[in-house]
Amino acid sequence: MTASATARRTVRVELADRSYDILIGPGLIAAAGREIASRLKGRKIAVITDENVAPIYLDNFLAALKVEGIDAVSLVLPAGEKTKSFEHLISVCDSVLAARIERNDAVVALGGGVIGDLTGFAAGIARRGSRFIQVPTSLLAQVDSSVGGKTGINSPHGKNLIGVFHQPDLVLADTDVLDTLSPREFRAGYAEVAKYGLIDKPDFFAWLEQNWQAVFAGGDARIEAIATSCQAKADVVAADERENGQRALLNLGHTFGHALEAATQYDSARLVHGEGVSIGMVLAHQFSTRMNLCSPDDGKRVEKHLREVGLPTSMDEIPGGLPPAEVLMDAIAQDKKVKGGKLTFILTRGVGQSFVADDVPQSEVVAFLKEKLPK
Amino acid sequence: MTASATARRTVRVELADRSYDILIGPGLIAAAGREIASRLKGRKIAVITDENVAPIYLDNFLAALKVEGIDAVSLVLPAGEKTKSFEHLISVCDSVLAARIERNDAVVALGGGVIGDLTGFAAGIARRGSRFIQVPTSLLAQVDSSVGGKTGINSPHGKNLIGVFHQPDLVLADTDVLDTLSPREFRAGYAEVAKYGLIDKPDFFAWLEQNWQAVFAGGDARIEAIATSCQAKADVVAADERENGQRALLNLGHTFGHALEAATQYDSARLVHGEGVSIGMVLAHQFSTRMNLCSPDDGKRVEKHLREVGLPTSMDEIPGGLPPAEVLMDAIAQDKKVKGGKLTFILTRGVGQSFVADDVPQSEVVAFLKEKLPK
Ligand SMILES: NC(=O)c1ccc[n+]([C@@H]2O[C@H](COP(=O)([O-])OP(=O)(O)OC[C@H]3O[C@@H](n4cnc5c(N)ncnc54)[C@H](O)[C@@H]3O)[C@@H](O)[C@H]2O)c1
Ligand SMILES: NC(=O)c1ccc[n+]([C@@H]2O[C@H](COP(=O)([O-])OP(=O)(O)OC[C@H]3O[C@@H](n4cnc5c(N)ncnc54)[C@H](O)[C@@H]3O)[C@@H](O)[C@H]2O)c1
Ligand SMILES: [Zn+2]
Ligand SMILES: [Zn+2]
Repeated sequence: MTASATARRTVRVELADRSYDILIGPGLIAAAGREIASRLKGRKIAVITDENVAPIYLDNFLAALKVEGIDAVSLVLPAGEKTKSFEHLISVCDSVLAARIERNDAVVALGGGVIGDLTGFAAGIARRGSRFIQVPTSLLAQVDSSVGGKTGINSPHGKNLIGVFHQPDLVLADTDVLDTLSPREFRAGYAEVAKYGLIDKPDFFAWLEQNWQAVFAGGDARIEAIATSCQAKADVVAADERENGQRALLNLGHTFGHALEAATQYDSARLVHGEGVSIGMVLAHQFSTRMNLCSPDDGKRVEKHLREVGLPTSMDEIPGGLPPAEVLMDAIAQDKKVKGGKLTFILTRGVGQSFVADDVPQSEVVAFLKEKLPK
Repeated sequence: MTASATARRTVRVELADRSYDILIGPGLIAAAGREIASRLKGRKIAVITDENVAPIYLDNFLAALKVEGIDAVSLVLPAGEKTKSFEHLISVCDSVLAARIERNDAVVALGGGVIGDLTGFAAGIARRGSRFIQVPTSLLAQVDSSVGGKTGINSPHGKNLIGVFHQPDLVLADTDVLDTLSPREFRAGYAEVAKYGLIDKPDFFAWLEQNWQAVFAGGDARIEAIATSCQAKADVVAADERENGQRALLNLGHTFGHALEAATQYDSARLVHGEGVSIGMVLAHQFSTRMNLCSPDDGKRVEKHLREVGLPTSMDEIPGGLPPAEVLMDAIAQDKKVKGGKLTFILTRGVGQSFVADDVPQSEVVAFLKEKLPK
């Protein structure tokens, strides 16, 4: 117990009157009732979760709320990226309204990034904005999607194309729950952890190269890696909440990654988000090398580390085949990072030296993809 | 032409970096291309309209854009309150994304409040916020719904329960188009005009009592009434964009009105929004009298004026029967203006003396409704 309390870390996201805390550490599901009750005026909650997380954590979470006199209704949705759809958005809105969640009550996302993005969107539009609490249960959600207020669903036209900015009021990242996450999903989340190093923290990337096994094993190194990642994201979000500038750096690897996710129809059997990001980050370094920005050694170093932890690092590793370069290019052009027809890309001058380039020639990208696609 | 230019009025909504102009006057559809081109960086537009407005105005509007080199796609939806649904929200989002409307392009609502609320919501969530232009064609939309950034759709649980705040970048209120609006719809919009007088502008209400026939006839009195209404709304919105306080005054008559709309299943053959507001404003005065706040003469004066212009002023006038008081009360309690179970109501001390009361006993409302419902 004392150990738990000691290990717990708090990262604050500074956004004026919408500032909030991210609590990171063991035992936070059991402590959720207390943490929520001390911050919430209302006493009613709607919990949205998925069919994988519910059997393991929902009862404990509801019990923790009940002890503090908080009433909760819950909705269990199918797991997986396809749940980020209008169909499920409608059911979440319906549960929230049926439960008569009012302005001082809250909507809670208990799950990975899929549940967080979908539930946050529903909270952002139910009564034109309801209170929202993130209880991220995947590594990816703890280090990335639960922080920063981007919420949304996918469209047939592309990923995350429909949504709102809606900041949570609190994030509770219970690091114990990562022990039930599949190794594949843990690795996928780890891609986002590595991303913060690659953006602008070369020392953190070097630390990960040394300590990744301890991060995977759990304990203090894991908490340290999650807290460092949350702090990195919190800093970027505080500086540029609505992605008018530097927040775009967080998309390192994502322009390629999203196109690969679209090309595999968001089928998580073939590719999950973090895997797309892993391949995308390697491609971003290689493309930067092609543009004479980045030494090939840096690209190799990134590829080596990601492969070492077990992540895919090239398009060849995606089962089931990919469409031609032109089709991938089309998916890239439909991605959000497009202004007036010009391509905005996150490129890099080396490990920890990423930057936003907003004039990348489309023809170069197509030529590069043709070279890299499996023959 | 000189007359048109002279008659045109501009009201500015002051919201820091999201401030915008409302242009009010004749000929603005024909001038739309110029007004939009001078304010928009992009050259692509998605126009959303309805099946009543499209045959009369869509071609002219598109032609006006074309002259200025603006490309447009358009989507024509069914007319009526039922269009404010997830089903149509999905089609609007789909058109906007299919047209690849990017951050500097815009989504345009050409129509009444239904099209404006739905389209504004879609613009607010497509790519987490796209530029949005209102071209309101009903009186209600010109004086109320197109100004202030409230957007949304209805839910089976109640009206406007799902939506976002998303301010337009420009509002073009062409007063000529009101000539094709049905007298019934014009009157419904007039209820919102009268509302601004009843909230806090007793002189404006007295002016309307004298000049309403000229407002209905068109010309300068109409432009004057619309500009005064827009200014009144702009002032409230600038002071309280997100309805944390005084903006709630704009709901005078709406708590009862929305419950009546729900009770008639949003069937515009039976009741349209402005008619519900008309009856609701009379009920708000009568209920205030019952609470010893307002002299019965003020209630009678309001009733007399609204009846004179041809608006319904009592629940008896709604065809097809109403549910019992308890059911209406239930609809009221699901309305947005509820905090911690207590009822927030806009009450009044007399013509032009409305205020927000947040402790109205539910039992009083039920007893009052029982008395007023048709036997
Ligand atoms: N909003 C943002 O800023 C942002 C940032 C990055 C990613 N995302 C989004 O996040 C999503 C990916 O998130 P994700 O990787 O968490 O996906 P996910 O929510 O699908 O979770 C991955 C899988 O792990 C399961 N799971 C979650 N927690 C578990 C636990 N503790 N034990 C056992 N199983 C568990 C889930 O049921 C699911 O099957 C994508 O949709 C992506 O677009 C959003
Ligand atoms: N967002 C807000 O702040 C706000 C405020 C008030 C009302 N509203 C909403 O506005 C809606 C009501 O708006 P409305 O009364 O404009 O309804 P509406 O959009 O249904 O328009 C009324 C009718 O008039 C037709 N029409 C519109 N312009 C016309 C024209 N120039 N010529 C001929 N026909 C025309 C329409 O096709 C429709 O049949 C409601 O849904 C209400 O909730 C929103
Ligand atoms: Zn990501
Ligand atoms: Zn109204």
